[in-house]
Amino acid sequence: MIRLYGYWRSSAAYRVRIALNLKGLEAEHLIVSPEGPEPANRQEGYLALNPAGKIPTLEIDGHVMVQSLAILDYLEETRPQPPLLPRDPADRAAVRAFCLTIAADVHPVQNGRVLNYLRHNAGFDDAAINAWAGEWMTAAFSALEDMLERRALTGPYAFGPDVTMADLCLVPQLYNARRFHVDLSPFHRLTAIEAAACALPAFARAAPEAQPDYPGPGGSF
Amino acid sequence: MIRLYGYWRSSAAYRVRIALNLKGLEAEHLIVSPEGPEPANRQEGYLALNPAGKIPTLEIDGHVMVQSLAILDYLEETRPQPPLLPRDPADRAAVRAFCLTIAADVHPVQNGRVLNYLRHNAGFDDAAINAWAGEWMTAAFSALEDMLERRALTGPYAFGPDVTMADLCLVPQLYNARRFHVDLSPFHRLTAIEAAACALPAFARAAPEAQPDYPGPGGSF
Repeated sequence: MIRLYGYWRSSAAYRVRIALNLKGLEAEHLIVSPEGPEPANRQEGYLALNPAGKIPTLEIDGHVMVQSLAILDYLEETRPQPPLLPRDPADRAAVRAFCLTIAADVHPVQNGRVLNYLRHNAGFDDAAINAWAGEWMTAAFSALEDMLERRALTGPYAFGPDVTMADLCLVPQLYNARRFHVDLSPFHRLTAIEAAACALPAFARAAPEAQPDYPGPGGSF
Repeated sequence: MIRLYGYWRSSAAYRVRIALNLKGLEAEHLIVSPEGPEPANRQEGYLALNPAGKIPTLEIDGHVMVQSLAILDYLEETRPQPPLLPRDPADRAAVRAFCLTIAADVHPVQNGRVLNYLRHNAGFDDAAINAWAGEWMTAAFSALEDMLERRALTGPYAFGPDVTMADLCLVPQLYNARRFHVDLSPFHRLTAIEAAACALPAFARAAPEAQPDYPGPGGSF
């Protein structure tokens, strides 16, 4: 049995949920909330699986795996159908660069522990948090639009007619962008890709609103 | 001809320099300094190669590549000897998770543009910058030590007798840690791995101090 330890709003867990759905893999979903006075991801039981206390963790094939992009690569190597990376090495590098522009350049800078630090140690209020998150997201989204424009692909997904890891990283990041009120109107390519991807059942079933721990609209910031 | 656009102190460029050396690939090294009033990575010429203005960029096989981890994967797929990833998919996932704990969890949060923002928009002084960088590095290094302890490998490198991408990510991050005066004394495994790796010519030649643009000791913070 595959077990995914996740949380409705974790965009890294969201990436993995989409991948499991696309590859037709059934998984048991366990909820690990990083919120509240005793966050579940800081408890001993979870730290034994994931020493950094990050979300998600995947149990699969007798292994415990952390880091969403490493998990995506493992799924790709062990369950290659349908492929989430192109075959040509240069095309693969382009997809990976797109993913890392999200997963390494922007997502870590706006994740919960960083925002908590800024609130508690640097006096950031909601407006300052939104400005901070917007700064990095706007820069990253501009770079992603440029990357796509240069490749002149015709969609509907980020790298053409087939869904790739790029779409799995993009959709959760745009979800985050809305949470922080980032203006997405300049990013036509990205939002068109998002619309195409979100129409797929594998994406729809992985959405934060479709998770059992989704608290309903108006949940905490 | 392979061309690497880098900078002596960019730890992402440092990773790629080590990989090129290990794989015996000659490259022309071009300097792109992110410092000064007109940073070279924000100029039109460089942005045409790398829309995010990040460092490094690699020109290889007629392609322009960005994002150091995507570049490492491309080199691995097109120049597989010597391998920088194990063969077993679960072992590969463990190496990738180690790399991402550095490249995604900690490095982006302490990179230059983020520190500049904190200095200029949140009033961080040198002490606050060091505390910020130390917070994320200490958390990541603790997680990495735990990952290694559980695998009970005997070194000398992060994942055993062969150098992997994990070592290529670790050594530059420990270099950064010293720059921000992070206490490394609790991290025995990591510093022992660093010592073993840095004794290899491929690592020594890639070190910041060995680059032509190294300004000498006491360079700017």
